[in-house]
Amino acid sequence: MKIRFLLIFIYFICSLSFTYGQSRKIIYIPDIPGYKTLKCDFHMHTVFSDGTVWPTVRVNEAWRDGLDAISITDHIEYRPHSKDIVSDHNRSYEIAEPLADNLNILLIKGAEITRSMPPGHLNCLFIKNANLLERENVMDAIREARDQGAFILWNHPGWKAQQPDTTLWWDQHTELLNKDLLHGIEVFNEKEYYPEAIDWAVGKKLTMFSNSDVHSPVSMLYDTDNSTRPLTLVFSRSRTKGGIREALFSRRTAAFFNNTLAGPAELLEALFFASVKLNNPQGPLKNGETKYITIENNSDIEYQLELVQPGIGFDVTENTVLRAHRVTALELRGNSEQVASNGELKIYYKVNNALVSSDANLIITLRISNN
Amino acid sequence: MKIRFLLIFIYFICSLSFTYGQSRKIIYIPDIPGYKTLKCDFHMHTVFSDGTVWPTVRVNEAWRDGLDAISITDHIEYRPHSKDIVSDHNRSYEIAEPLADNLNILLIKGAEITRSMPPGHLNCLFIKNANLLERENVMDAIREARDQGAFILWNHPGWKAQQPDTTLWWDQHTELLNKDLLHGIEVFNEKEYYPEAIDWAVGKKLTMFSNSDVHSPVSMLYDTDNSTRPLTLVFSRSRTKGGIREALFSRRTAAFFNNTLAGPAELLEALFFASVKLNNPQGPLKNGETKYITIENNSDIEYQLELVQPGIGFDVTENTVLRAHRVTALELRGNSEQVASNGELKIYYKVNNALVSSDANLIITLRISNN
Amino acid sequence: MKIRFLLIFIYFICSLSFTYGQSRKIIYIPDIPGYKTLKCDFHMHTVFSDGTVWPTVRVNEAWRDGLDAISITDHIEYRPHSKDIVSDHNRSYEIAEPLADNLNILLIKGAEITRSMPPGHLNCLFIKNANLLERENVMDAIREARDQGAFILWNHPGWKAQQPDTTLWWDQHTELLNKDLLHGIEVFNEKEYYPEAIDWAVGKKLTMFSNSDVHSPVSMLYDTDNSTRPLTLVFSRSRTKGGIREALFSRRTAAFFNNTLAGPAELLEALFFASVKLNNPQGPLKNGETKYITIENNSDIEYQLELVQPGIGFDVTENTVLRAHRVTALELRGNSEQVASNGELKIYYKVNNALVSSDANLIITLRISNN
Amino acid sequence: MKIRFLLIFIYFICSLSFTYGQSRKIIYIPDIPGYKTLKCDFHMHTVFSDGTVWPTVRVNEAWRDGLDAISITDHIEYRPHSKDIVSDHNRSYEIAEPLADNLNILLIKGAEITRSMPPGHLNCLFIKNANLLERENVMDAIREARDQGAFILWNHPGWKAQQPDTTLWWDQHTELLNKDLLHGIEVFNEKEYYPEAIDWAVGKKLTMFSNSDVHSPVSMLYDTDNSTRPLTLVFSRSRTKGGIREALFSRRTAAFFNNTLAGPAELLEALFFASVKLNNPQGPLKNGETKYITIENNSDIEYQLELVQPGIGFDVTENTVLRAHRVTALELRGNSEQVASNGELKIYYKVNNALVSSDANLIITLRISNN
Repeated sequence: MKIRFLLIFIYFICSLSFTYGQSRKIIYIPDIPGYKTLKCDFHMHTVFSDGTVWPTVRVNEAWRDGLDAISITDHIEYRPHSKDIVSDHNRSYEIAEPLADNLNILLIKGAEITRSMPPGHLNCLFIKNANLLERENVMDAIREARDQGAFILWNHPGWKAQQPDTTLWWDQHTELLNKDLLHGIEVFNEKEYYPEAIDWAVGKKLTMFSNSDVHSPVSMLYDTDNSTRPLTLVFSRSRTKGGIREALFSRRTAAFFNNTLAGPAELLEALFFASVKLNNPQGPLKNGETKYITIENNSDIEYQLELVQPGIGFDVTENTVLRAHRVTALELRGNSEQVASNGELKIYYKVNNALVSSDANLIITLRISNN
Repeated sequence: MKIRFLLIFIYFICSLSFTYGQSRKIIYIPDIPGYKTLKCDFHMHTVFSDGTVWPTVRVNEAWRDGLDAISITDHIEYRPHSKDIVSDHNRSYEIAEPLADNLNILLIKGAEITRSMPPGHLNCLFIKNANLLERENVMDAIREARDQGAFILWNHPGWKAQQPDTTLWWDQHTELLNKDLLHGIEVFNEKEYYPEAIDWAVGKKLTMFSNSDVHSPVSMLYDTDNSTRPLTLVFSRSRTKGGIREALFSRRTAAFFNNTLAGPAELLEALFFASVKLNNPQGPLKNGETKYITIENNSDIEYQLELVQPGIGFDVTENTVLRAHRVTALELRGNSEQVASNGELKIYYKVNNALVSSDANLIITLRISNN
Repeated sequence: MKIRFLLIFIYFICSLSFTYGQSRKIIYIPDIPGYKTLKCDFHMHTVFSDGTVWPTVRVNEAWRDGLDAISITDHIEYRPHSKDIVSDHNRSYEIAEPLADNLNILLIKGAEITRSMPPGHLNCLFIKNANLLERENVMDAIREARDQGAFILWNHPGWKAQQPDTTLWWDQHTELLNKDLLHGIEVFNEKEYYPEAIDWAVGKKLTMFSNSDVHSPVSMLYDTDNSTRPLTLVFSRSRTKGGIREALFSRRTAAFFNNTLAGPAELLEALFFASVKLNNPQGPLKNGETKYITIENNSDIEYQLELVQPGIGFDVTENTVLRAHRVTALELRGNSEQVASNGELKIYYKVNNALVSSDANLIITLRISNN
Repeated sequence: MKIRFLLIFIYFICSLSFTYGQSRKIIYIPDIPGYKTLKCDFHMHTVFSDGTVWPTVRVNEAWRDGLDAISITDHIEYRPHSKDIVSDHNRSYEIAEPLADNLNILLIKGAEITRSMPPGHLNCLFIKNANLLERENVMDAIREARDQGAFILWNHPGWKAQQPDTTLWWDQHTELLNKDLLHGIEVFNEKEYYPEAIDWAVGKKLTMFSNSDVHSPVSMLYDTDNSTRPLTLVFSRSRTKGGIREALFSRRTAAFFNNTLAGPAELLEALFFASVKLNNPQGPLKNGETKYITIENNSDIEYQLELVQPGIGFDVTENTVLRAHRVTALELRGNSEQVASNGELKIYYKVNNALVSSDANLIITLRISNN
């Protein structure tokens, strides 16, 4: 028996895709000189693999959460809902794309090659046809992705399920790297952090990522009102898919999660100085006198500073936190007669939540004009 | 080509259903004498009709949000994802049930008969086989539900798409009522409120509901951290499906949304007095003197009070708000010599956010011992 | 017996004034073309009249709350703590000034002439010697203030204690106005709003104020984490006392409280357009098609928009709220063939929380390029 | 010249003391068997020593913050505002007392003897006349307090200004202890924590305190909306001053700050079990099966649990956090055939935020009925 209910359903049609009336969060992470800072998440699932949401939800969430770009990366080899859901590997992208276009979210076509270790799970971004990645031999699948122009990253390299004791770099990863079949690595995945991944990224010239790998609705995993979901910050020449692709292959990213940054020192330094503004009262600091320098942090990132060497001719606050969207005062106190004649005072802080390797932090220099 | 990936996926299995590590909100809405106050939502959708989440998400959300019972009510006649999703009308219940059992969420089997007006959309709760509700003639479908033992409610009776100008009660609703095929009505749906529905509930002896009708993830629609999603409060003899069924047919519910209650006066009054505790300083109020009575509100409901008649022998705060989980002070000031000899002072407040009809509010009497 | 405890107290000295380690809120209310937007509160009390805090608290609060300028305006005629506190009318300013200098808060010397109605309570800003304002005759006191160069404003003109039934403009206020002894009026005071004051400000060319009149610690009165205390927004040529004085006498202020603005239309309009940024997708709107315009609101002010006339050739969202620090989407839908050839689409919104008189709102025009 | 302004000021009188309309927070820290759990702060200052608020502010803050009892402990020897404020040492109590009575806050009369180290600063609670404590010789002052019946505690024993390198116990403290002139010690002061103080309290039988020592308005120091100020939890037979005195001398307190408890194990254990409720699904745990035990935490204290020894016959969640006012699930998984026949399963957790000495934590045993 076929039943027809044409008329009454036209009311549904508009509301199908976009939860209208919702608003979009603005993530205050500033651009840096020469580049736009795009907020991206390149790893997530839908009901078309083992996720629990329809593909349009991922786009709506990205819009709500203030993201610029996402990639839906359903598993090629693992589709536990296949008894109920019958569609090919390109279908989740197909469903999400029109809404992404309307909402101006850059939707990067992707898929996750999902194998035992090695090589583990690999995300392939900028692919053209996900169906062709369904191959018996994993190297065939990866080569197919690469032939389609994919950027390939190693997901959750320290995931306990696949690396129970030690987070190892396997021979097969060296092989992938040598054959230009591996370009990036996740430093943060879901709520996990892999210190080894930063060092491999630095040593083997891989691009750093911070991705959610979300299967459920985003808000079941993160409290996005009060912080952000994991973000891969892409420093891109333009807000386009091509811009992102160029930036990824050029390793211009920072991984950001739980108020911690990981990335190349020069990018993190640029981001720090784009985030803050120093306000310096007039007149030189004198011996025995106190002066307050205020630092205005207009970003969503809270910077945690620790003094790494004493000031020359002055004492200064040793530990401070530059809270997001607040002004913090540094107290300088002259401790020598010479200080008044220094034209510039330099303060060297370690940024405890900005990692440039697994055991080294960004060092920044605050230069205080002292005239 | 068939590919087998057995081993590596055993890691996924545990995490498939329950987002472990999450915690469950406690909704502080107290029991009333003789009954447990169950927090319920009897209207929601999944990918198996026009929703955007997998059925287990609804159970996880209910657990997280502190609910006792839900019903997944996918449309019988409207299944826009049917190109991708091939399953019958019982499938969403089947998928959600094991998780509901594990998490001790009472999952009521339901479905939504979805027709043009009249009779509009009707939820059938406590059905046995949803497939049998797929009938050409709407009366046949409703009768089938009733034959299965269903409690039937009229959804969003004032939905603009079906009642563009006036919220009308149609002849067919009278017919349903007379034939014992209609038992309840939504006063709140999603974010809408239908004043007419309260009056019909009172006049025609229907049970009042407040349901989300959520299609997306719950947190895209409501900010459940800071308030609650719509709740049908069921005053039940026990925390069981049978208890709920008995309470619904006995009309022991209150609709709650956006800090507004609607329901029978005696239930709302019991709920008010179960929520608050009066603290009364010793000694009688005297003419010209001031005494502070404090009211401790241990519930999540903020009660908005407005004095409806002057105190006899005393002045008292005219407007106040009993904020949730806070103590509020009422100021009593004696204005006659007789007041000191009244053994009990009575204060009559209207509760502005507790509706007993579309234009009448709950009136409560605070009795202050004055010895 | 005199006891000397010199040594141990040097530890106290530093911490006496500035609660170091605290941070300062940034109020995101933007500058407008040609002027800096200074956030000010020109009415508050200390223990030196009937307040309950030491004068330095007012400066620390101003720093914490992100203010640019304040005035401590202790009552001349009402000093209930005089049994315990023996000092003259200049003392609260004297105590607060050094801290204000250190923290770069502009502290305007002020006092409140405190009489029965008429003329009620008058704040005198930019005075030089508060002691000389202690005069039997109120006109003598006001003239003395004016002779010192004061800007004089009428405080809480609708305060029930002095205007129990109607908020009246008295003959004495006309006299003051005519003699250049009255320049401003409070539209908002503490948590009250006086609609008449806006109309008098417009009709009689008075400057509008929004002041706290706080007696207790600020945070006992307002939840400054989640909103702001009352602010007089001063559109000033510079962040200096002189700049503020010039702006006040030139009537370049807006009163802001509880997310409501009151002020001259041209200033409110400039503030609105400095707060928001329109993002307009390329390509003309066509008949029957939908286009989303997004509006990015980077200010702390939530703007509430209501359409005042239909679009020409298109339908558009009728009511929307531009939430602070969020992006909101407007939905445009072409409803005529001509719309595609209009080079610019105009949308006329009333801003429901921006008052230009007691019964008129700011109207803004959004101009959407349509090429 | 004397000016009289009688009439107009009657309007002020009512509002002088109590910020009416404010509400009082309820601190959810439960009573324990046999005792009421009173929330107290026994160390704070006003303008009558080096504080910056009027004494009534301390009472209003206590009411707002949900406290039961406070003591204003102005310095005897340090009064930097004495040029402006001329009153004796009893005056701050005198001013605060009527408001405390009205608001039902227990105001304990106190003072702080303020000397260099040793003995440092000592709070004297339950004194009768603070003026008599102004003595040249510190032992005379302490003896005077004791003669008045005072309970005496050592404040901030590890304050860097007085104990720059090591937190030392001095001979004079032993002398005080031996002469019954020292009864308690602060474990938490303002935002500091002194581990040595817990061990001294345990070893020398001193009562533990957590006090604010606040000089500014409370809300400049703590974010009391989202957490609590430091609390000395007093387990008292009654909510009376006498009850508190008996409890202090009997060492029935716990220090609470920043979600950390310090106190005697038996009191902390009683508090833990009064805070939580276990919900245990029916039926025994079987080998290879999983069971969820949920724990409902109805208190404001977040308990951080860490497993201290493996379960016998089952695996169980190793680390978990019992968030305040939420339900948390423990996962039990049978790992032996015998487990099903154990009538009771025992789980041993260390509570990481409950200290019984500087290096030992409370251990609690969860007993799960397994029938």
